[in-house]
Amino acid sequence: MILTITPNPALDVTYHLADVRWGEVNRVTEVTETAGGKGVNVARVLHQLSEPVSCTGFLGGDTGDRMRDMLAGLDQRWVPVPHTTRRTTAVVTGTATTLFNEPGAPVDEGAWHALSTVVADVAGRGDVVVLSGSMPPGTTESAVGELVSHAARRGARVVADTSGPLLRTAARAGAALVKPNQEELREATGEADVVAGAQVLLADGAEAVVVSLGEDGMLALTGGSGRPHRTVRARPSGVVPGNPTGAGDAAVAALARALHAAAATPLESVLHASLADAVALSAAAVACPVAGEVDLGRYQRERAAVAATTG
Amino acid sequence: MILTITPNPALDVTYHLADVRWGEVNRVTEVTETAGGKGVNVARVLHQLSEPVSCTGFLGGDTGDRMRDMLAGLDQRWVPVPHTTRRTTAVVTGTATTLFNEPGAPVDEGAWHALSTVVADVAGRGDVVVLSGSMPPGTTESAVGELVSHAARRGARVVADTSGPLLRTAARAGAALVKPNQEELREATGEADVVAGAQVLLADGAEAVVVSLGEDGMLALTGGSGRPHRTVRARPSGVVPGNPTGAGDAAVAALARALHAAAATPLESVLHASLADAVALSAAAVACPVAGEVDLGRYQRERAAVAATTG
Repeated sequence: MILTITPNPALDVTYHLADVRWGEVNRVTEVTETAGGKGVNVARVLHQLSEPVSCTGFLGGDTGDRMRDMLAGLDQRWVPVPHTTRRTTAVVTGTATTLFNEPGAPVDEGAWHALSTVVADVAGRGDVVVLSGSMPPGTTESAVGELVSHAARRGARVVADTSGPLLRTAARAGAALVKPNQEELREATGEADVVAGAQVLLADGAEAVVVSLGEDGMLALTGGSGRPHRTVRARPSGVVPGNPTGAGDAAVAALARALHAAAATPLESVLHASLADAVALSAAAVACPVAGEVDLGRYQRERAAVAATTG
Repeated sequence: MILTITPNPALDVTYHLADVRWGEVNRVTEVTETAGGKGVNVARVLHQLSEPVSCTGFLGGDTGDRMRDMLAGLDQRWVPVPHTTRRTTAVVTGTATTLFNEPGAPVDEGAWHALSTVVADVAGRGDVVVLSGSMPPGTTESAVGELVSHAARRGARVVADTSGPLLRTAARAGAALVKPNQEELREATGEADVVAGAQVLLADGAEAVVVSLGEDGMLALTGGSGRPHRTVRARPSGVVPGNPTGAGDAAVAALARALHAAAATPLESVLHASLADAVALSAAAVACPVAGEVDLGRYQRERAAVAATTG
């Protein structure tokens, strides 16, 4: 089973309009809504690929109810919280997408405890736990660290795709794989160089670091703790026009699927075999207008075109 | 009794952030919510002034529930509808406010009928009915015309503050007073000149037209149908810094209060006596950061400073 955890999910609201007059009144032409949050996107992609996946996190209020309805068909194990789940508002014109992310509300200790119970119910040896996205305001490093180490102790491999100091917390707590983008890596480690930044996370304890490089594909690093570093690099066949939101989540879905399919295989070998697949699925997500969905035809074509090189 | 009708109310959501990076991801610092819609603002100002006021319109879903809670203390006579009431999203930085207005959802004939029953329950001779703001998508001119003539036939004086062709519909259906701003007047009548535009609405059947001119105050016209036009003009004492959203609604509240207090007095005399008051209350609304509220101290000072001139 793959369990995705979204501690700070959101109802993604999109305002479509021809253009925006800044500082003025704008009439929105159309409003669309999707269940959002990075872990939700990962779960939706895995569900689309018919993988055994379950999603959890903290959910509440009427936006939470709406998200639960929208995710019907997916195995959902949300921890109920008293506050109303936040929204994100995307303002989409013909030329630009501007995102406004509400911060969300704090979550108490009892809810974090309930979340670790969900993890205990679902995750054991051979399972994969994906922790994605931002945390509720006020989340402590120890809450995140305990959740990661709890899953790791149960034998699950943990993939962490979050940002800030929590990336290092997850690496130290036993995450097998951490996946920052370039900016998140720099922010978390203070290193401008990608390899140097990834080495910090390896030294923290991560078995592997996969850095998403946008249109340049992905770079995976393994090794550390005295062992020589190995890298795998994969590039998309070209620039895919579309919506980059959710591309990183599709890559995480591909990596989680590969880890789940090869539970006994060393991570380095899994990455060698799957990084090109992650880049292909990521491109297939860009080709889809909605985050959390992939264009399966595009995915097949990209799979044939993307190659990985090792170093 | 003053009854305000808001056919297309909204939960006004405000995103506060230091600045906006256009085309990028922005983290919202704080989210605040108020019950909105122009008729709701009018009712809130009248309630603050301890006037006997009731509000109605179409309300539904969880945003509707939240608005009802926020308006506790106000006499509310909403017609329930199956759709969720829309939102507006205001993005407020230190230097600019950008509004995104969702369109709302259509309302069926049964709901319009229920609304006219509310009007029949509340409004009779001596009462004032205020129809404010945008209409739900798909609203016909006949629905608006029937509502206005229904209230007028019952002896209530109707104030219409809407836009587009419906301004003329309201004037033709028996609205005593219509209150466009300059742009709305031009849009509705095709006349660039304020007096010429107002004359169109007087010829349509309105007893009075009050045009809000922003920082230049307000101009009222009466007469028409062969009678000579009379004007009343009032200007604020100076430019009031603040939030102009809701300033027009405060002016409408002042005019509705004056009409209600002098039910047997000709409209021309009421306007002569009350236009300066409307400009003062409007300035007191600008001085308040939240639409639908007025700064009572500012109101007292402006009352002493604003004078009306007749022509």
